[in-house]
Amino acid sequence: MESVITPDFAPLAHALEDRAAQEEGYSAQLAVYHRGELVLSHTVGEHLGGDGLTCVFSCTKGLSALVIALLMQDGLLDPAEPITTYWPEFGTHGKGQLTLGEVLSHQAGVLGVPGGVPSKILLNSAEYAKILASMPSIWPLGQNIFGYHAITMGILMEELVRRVTGRELKDVYEERIRGILGVDAYIGQDASLESRYRQVLPGLNDAGAFFDPFSPAGLAVNSSSGFAFENGPVYSWHEAANSPMMRAIGPASMGGVADAQSLAATYAASFGPVPSLGIRQGFLSEDTWSRASTELVYGPERTGGQIQAYALGFMKPTANNDFGSIFAYGHDGANSSLAYADPAYQLSFGFIPSRNEGQREKSTGIQLSQLARQIVIGTMMKARG
Amino acid sequence: MESVITPDFAPLAHALEDRAAQEEGYSAQLAVYHRGELVLSHTVGEHLGGDGLTCVFSCTKGLSALVIALLMQDGLLDPAEPITTYWPEFGTHGKGQLTLGEVLSHQAGVLGVPGGVPSKILLNSAEYAKILASMPSIWPLGQNIFGYHAITMGILMEELVRRVTGRELKDVYEERIRGILGVDAYIGQDASLESRYRQVLPGLNDAGAFFDPFSPAGLAVNSSSGFAFENGPVYSWHEAANSPMMRAIGPASMGGVADAQSLAATYAASFGPVPSLGIRQGFLSEDTWSRASTELVYGPERTGGQIQAYALGFMKPTANNDFGSIFAYGHDGANSSLAYADPAYQLSFGFIPSRNEGQREKSTGIQLSQLARQIVIGTMMKARG
Amino acid sequence: MESVITPDFAPLAHALEDRAAQEEGYSAQLAVYHRGELVLSHTVGEHLGGDGLTCVFSCTKGLSALVIALLMQDGLLDPAEPITTYWPEFGTHGKGQLTLGEVLSHQAGVLGVPGGVPSKILLNSAEYAKILASMPSIWPLGQNIFGYHAITMGILMEELVRRVTGRELKDVYEERIRGILGVDAYIGQDASLESRYRQVLPGLNDAGAFFDPFSPAGLAVNSSSGFAFENGPVYSWHEAANSPMMRAIGPASMGGVADAQSLAATYAASFGPVPSLGIRQGFLSEDTWSRASTELVYGPERTGGQIQAYALGFMKPTANNDFGSIFAYGHDGANSSLAYADPAYQLSFGFIPSRNEGQREKSTGIQLSQLARQIVIGTMMKARG
Repeated sequence: MESVITPDFAPLAHALEDRAAQEEGYSAQLAVYHRGELVLSHTVGEHLGGDGLTCVFSCTKGLSALVIALLMQDGLLDPAEPITTYWPEFGTHGKGQLTLGEVLSHQAGVLGVPGGVPSKILLNSAEYAKILASMPSIWPLGQNIFGYHAITMGILMEELVRRVTGRELKDVYEERIRGILGVDAYIGQDASLESRYRQVLPGLNDAGAFFDPFSPAGLAVNSSSGFAFENGPVYSWHEAANSPMMRAIGPASMGGVADAQSLAATYAASFGPVPSLGIRQGFLSEDTWSRASTELVYGPERTGGQIQAYALGFMKPTANNDFGSIFAYGHDGANSSLAYADPAYQLSFGFIPSRNEGQREKSTGIQLSQLARQIVIGTMMKARG
Repeated sequence: MESVITPDFAPLAHALEDRAAQEEGYSAQLAVYHRGELVLSHTVGEHLGGDGLTCVFSCTKGLSALVIALLMQDGLLDPAEPITTYWPEFGTHGKGQLTLGEVLSHQAGVLGVPGGVPSKILLNSAEYAKILASMPSIWPLGQNIFGYHAITMGILMEELVRRVTGRELKDVYEERIRGILGVDAYIGQDASLESRYRQVLPGLNDAGAFFDPFSPAGLAVNSSSGFAFENGPVYSWHEAANSPMMRAIGPASMGGVADAQSLAATYAASFGPVPSLGIRQGFLSEDTWSRASTELVYGPERTGGQIQAYALGFMKPTANNDFGSIFAYGHDGANSSLAYADPAYQLSFGFIPSRNEGQREKSTGIQLSQLARQIVIGTMMKARG
Repeated sequence: MESVITPDFAPLAHALEDRAAQEEGYSAQLAVYHRGELVLSHTVGEHLGGDGLTCVFSCTKGLSALVIALLMQDGLLDPAEPITTYWPEFGTHGKGQLTLGEVLSHQAGVLGVPGGVPSKILLNSAEYAKILASMPSIWPLGQNIFGYHAITMGILMEELVRRVTGRELKDVYEERIRGILGVDAYIGQDASLESRYRQVLPGLNDAGAFFDPFSPAGLAVNSSSGFAFENGPVYSWHEAANSPMMRAIGPASMGGVADAQSLAATYAASFGPVPSLGIRQGFLSEDTWSRASTELVYGPERTGGQIQAYALGFMKPTANNDFGSIFAYGHDGANSSLAYADPAYQLSFGFIPSRNEGQREKSTGIQLSQLARQIVIGTMMKARG
């Protein structure tokens, strides 16, 4: 990741350095685009330095949602349509009453399979999609209850892309987004990049609270069976992320590999020109990103109990998760990575820490995001005179 | 209560002892069934020792909900039916739009009567039911708003049992559940058991915050008039519980008297065989307990403001009230008693502390429940090899 | 403000003095009516002493909602009617599906204009109303999502009054409420009262967290453009309040000027007789205040994330905002002022602190309200004997 610190955004680099100073061995990448220019790209610590890439966990969902938005722009998907328009088999147990938008805003209640699914299913999207289609929701439909589909949201998105294009989500992403931008934000990482991959490190406070595998949260991460890969089941997020097989497959929920600058660049190019990448206009029209980022649900979500809001696969900011304006669209990840576009400020943002510290690092990402916005507001005011 | 500590569950007994060691005079009962066997039955402290029984407050609602589930199994009640199918008089003020399931998941908004009801009404279920039928909801219907009906949920359940069987809920419970199991978990305690009754002790921090009697929480506990019994009004939960008259009547909301082992045994027998009690199969079929424990509502409840979930009279676990899996059904009580079945683990659980300590002891129950599940998961893994 | 401390309510005066003793320079007004009599009117500190009046911020919304209730009593407004019955132009972008009650309980999602509006719009209610009518909701309609419309709720109320009476809300208020009562609670303060006006003081901890102007909270307070008045934009609440121009205009959301006794008197006269003011019966009938105070929505609101409940423009108490019974109607303000009626106790309450301290003083108001209710309950019990 090249290093760029423009004067206006230097305080943001300092804030990241202040965070690093609090913890020995801390490493993280941070990047910001403003008005189509890379205004900050800064890495602290050694672990994520150089040309390092790492797993961005559920930030992948944001990249996947960009594909969904593109297909909406193509006229292939419409959030208001019944889900069964695209996927008739999904309509079992009353789930046919759901719209596409409701399914992609975490309202379907198919968090996972009680008892878990084995790896051959977990990593076989088409097979897992059949199972999800056949399942009942674990909550009552028709009340706009929603809960975070940590893994299965990717399966749902992948199946929908398959249904309307006949292709895999990651291939559409590669062809129409990443390949055109030429950035290092992959869904399905090529083996040739393995030397650049930096392991996700375990959190310093990783002891872990009890996690009932048959609870909503347990179902959502398939914790009965774990992430079963090359050498048998794996029960921790960072080990799952570090599996080369998983990253090669690139599940749309969590398999993305990137650096912070590439995440920010991808979001920048989604809504506006990015001259340094040869992008003359956003690959989503204003009408498209506006519809794709329209909030579809808000409240305490059922999986983990946090107040959240979701759009068409994208996470939306709330007072308790204040990463952007009402126009922002993006996603965070289990390792507290955070990436989003905020057209209100012509801003995009990417943040990836090396350790999986959960909530603590999540607040770091939010605070950096707030500072980025404060700086933009300051520059806007200066511009006004 | 006999003492049983099987090796796998010894850590659970130790956890309870650790809790007791933190507080002089602490006493509590804990029992767990796993795969139909009593794997733990342990009492700490003297107060609840020997053959002691005590009031289990709203754990009674869970026992009452087992009766409702049985009647659903009989084909007499259907959660999807309008409430007026069973109770036409309840349909005043637009309440006729509610289903049975909505009423029994705390959505009706008839928490109590402003100004309170006198004891002759409070303890006369049929009379109180008439009043509730005639009342408007205190919140807007049609939005799935719900709030904990601390007392009136029992009245609603009792009236519904009356309507479809012509009998009292406690008599159906006695005949079809308790009498068959032969356990010490009573709704309507016989005077002959009075010598075994152990007083519910006041909490150590019982000063009590202000409680507006005309607020939802105040209405829900009839606090304007208190619990008016033999010797005039009684305003504290533990005094109400200790009233012999109240326990003899056995309100379905809060009048149950039991030991922890009997609570756990009752739940164990609800979904599976319990050989030691001569029970060859659960008195609820899998289809029945599955339907009866289907979540009907989730969110911040209106009475006390906590995030909760409810099924057909049963409390459901949430991320903030993590007592079991998505299959669990049970209820806690005002004294932080907790009892439930969790068929996901072939587990059932009963916990009764002697002091009414509110939230503090509630977390003890949750922690013990989590440890019980961890142990079961460990034994399942050992079994897999 | 005359000083009145009746014996029963002396503990309330002492509680206010205790609060004052904790902070040098603290000043606040507190007043309570019970059964139509002024039972407490007490000021601590110098700032708000004598005949001082000050800005009551969103307590003004409560006074405005009294006007709405009066027009409902007149048969001119009905909460169940579609909003388009009164305001056809509001029905753009699907907002025509909203009822009057939904709009006035903060469900419309027109919190403000991204980028802010200039002062000439902010203070021109009819013009701003046209803009709001043309806007889409920022959240999905049909889910009973709601968020605090800090400024625009006043615009909505003003436009509705204009539509059904052809007059300004403040003029109806002056003629039919304040003028009749003869109290010092103004919407639109006359210049002749300027010598009695006491500045709202900045909070001691006013540094201020970051506030994204394009977030729901930022939109709701027009923070992109601030409150633009005589001498250019003003970005803090207390400066906005202290603007003579703003107070002369008297926006229905936040422009009210009053003392605590007048607020309490106005609410007292809304539901019952107030002999000292020559009011023989409440200016709202029991049917009217009962309908106007009927809860219309409950849950975590979208603007700031707090759990709230609203009726027809009035704030309702909840377990987390426990200022009264289920019958109470009123509103708090940004400076932690609080005023309401609670017919359950034949009580009304006004509290105005001089500093804008946010949440800290809000809890002071709640605690004083709870003590007032405790005292009333005590007197009721004494009366029973």
